[in-house]
Amino acid sequence: MFAGTQVSLYPMTDGFVDVIMSSLDALDPWRDRLRIETDDISTLIVGPPEVLFPALRDLYAKAASTGQHVVLRATLSRGCPGEPDDPICQTAALANPKEPLDQRQQQALAAIAETADKGQIADAQFSLYVMGAGDHMAEIMGCIDFLKQSGTFDRSKNFCTRLTGDAGPVFATLQQAFCQFGPPAGHVTIDLTVSANSPSKR
Amino acid sequence: MFAGTQVSLYPMTDGFVDVIMSSLDALDPWRDRLRIETDDISTLIVGPPEVLFPALRDLYAKAASTGQHVVLRATLSRGCPGEPDDPICQTAALANPKEPLDQRQQQALAAIAETADKGQIADAQFSLYVMGAGDHMAEIMGCIDFLKQSGTFDRSKNFCTRLTGDAGPVFATLQQAFCQFGPPAGHVTIDLTVSANSPSKR
Repeated sequence: MFAGTQVSLYPMTDGFVDVIMSSLDALDPWRDRLRIETDDISTLIVGPPEVLFPALRDLYAKAASTGQHVVLRATLSRGCPGEPDDPICQTAALANPKEPLDQRQQQALAAIAETADKGQIADAQFSLYVMGAGDHMAEIMGCIDFLKQSGTFDRSKNFCTRLTGDAGPVFATLQQAFCQFGPPAGHVTIDLTVSANSPSKR
Repeated sequence: MFAGTQVSLYPMTDGFVDVIMSSLDALDPWRDRLRIETDDISTLIVGPPEVLFPALRDLYAKAASTGQHVVLRATLSRGCPGEPDDPICQTAALANPKEPLDQRQQQALAAIAETADKGQIADAQFSLYVMGAGDHMAEIMGCIDFLKQSGTFDRSKNFCTRLTGDAGPVFATLQQAFCQFGPPAGHVTIDLTVSANSPSKR
């Protein structure tokens, strides 16, 4: 299995380079379980979902704590048929496909309930894509049903779903959406936007 | 059919609101063929692909012309089973699924050859997702083969493909990738990032 993300931070300030560089420190506790490469558009982070999502959460929370309007954008993927297996991605976090949807939903809700707050608000918007064989819309509808019970659900929009709340439960909700829906051997992706300190909300 | 995008501009400057507001003027020539709604995270633009992509191109080029480091991010979708048909999205731009891949590739290349330059460089990165029945990887591999001949191909990365060049042919390449691959009745999405004036490139 291969899993990871292409992630970018967009601080809407003249001091954007400083915000980005200082936020990257938040990845330090996770670095030994990830592979990280940066170019001028995004940073590739390869690793298992149970490390990826907390790492993204901490990166976001550090950037948000500057008080600047900053957006984290990430393209997340697991099981892309075009990517090679990678030992660093080995994970036990993906759901058993033989389990019915409602059991997976309950496990996802239990995981969120155990998640601590980070002290930063996260306004998130994301799309979950499930590729390949099988009934991808049943998995997506099952995921949306879970999201509505998650405590972080804000509203459905065209093409995506909005979540809002503390960064802890919001990123935990995203992790559960990524891991519990769609087959473990399948290709699942998330197109994610998380916004902090937007002046449009003030 | 329902098609459209959730799009955001991220200008990395204290004057981000001014850059966004002045760039929106670039949508004016297209507005009568689109439906546009904005919230604090993104702007929804609903319409057919042959209007959507030129509109995004003009929005990007206007923002890039400020000289600021600015990123356009868009989630594009056509044929999502969860969205209602909308007359404003009616289009003849989608490929005939009975046509073999190589003919669709040739049509895509011809369309790019006819595209005028915009005078702004676009460094783009995108993922194309084809959902539902059928051999989605064959369509994606056929698309990648086209991209390599497009004249805008930069390189493959994990989870995505980079394009670079003038905004005219770059957005034309994206439009062709969206329209010529995957069935017309299928659900096709693009996760798109386009970066202007990055200091990492200077």
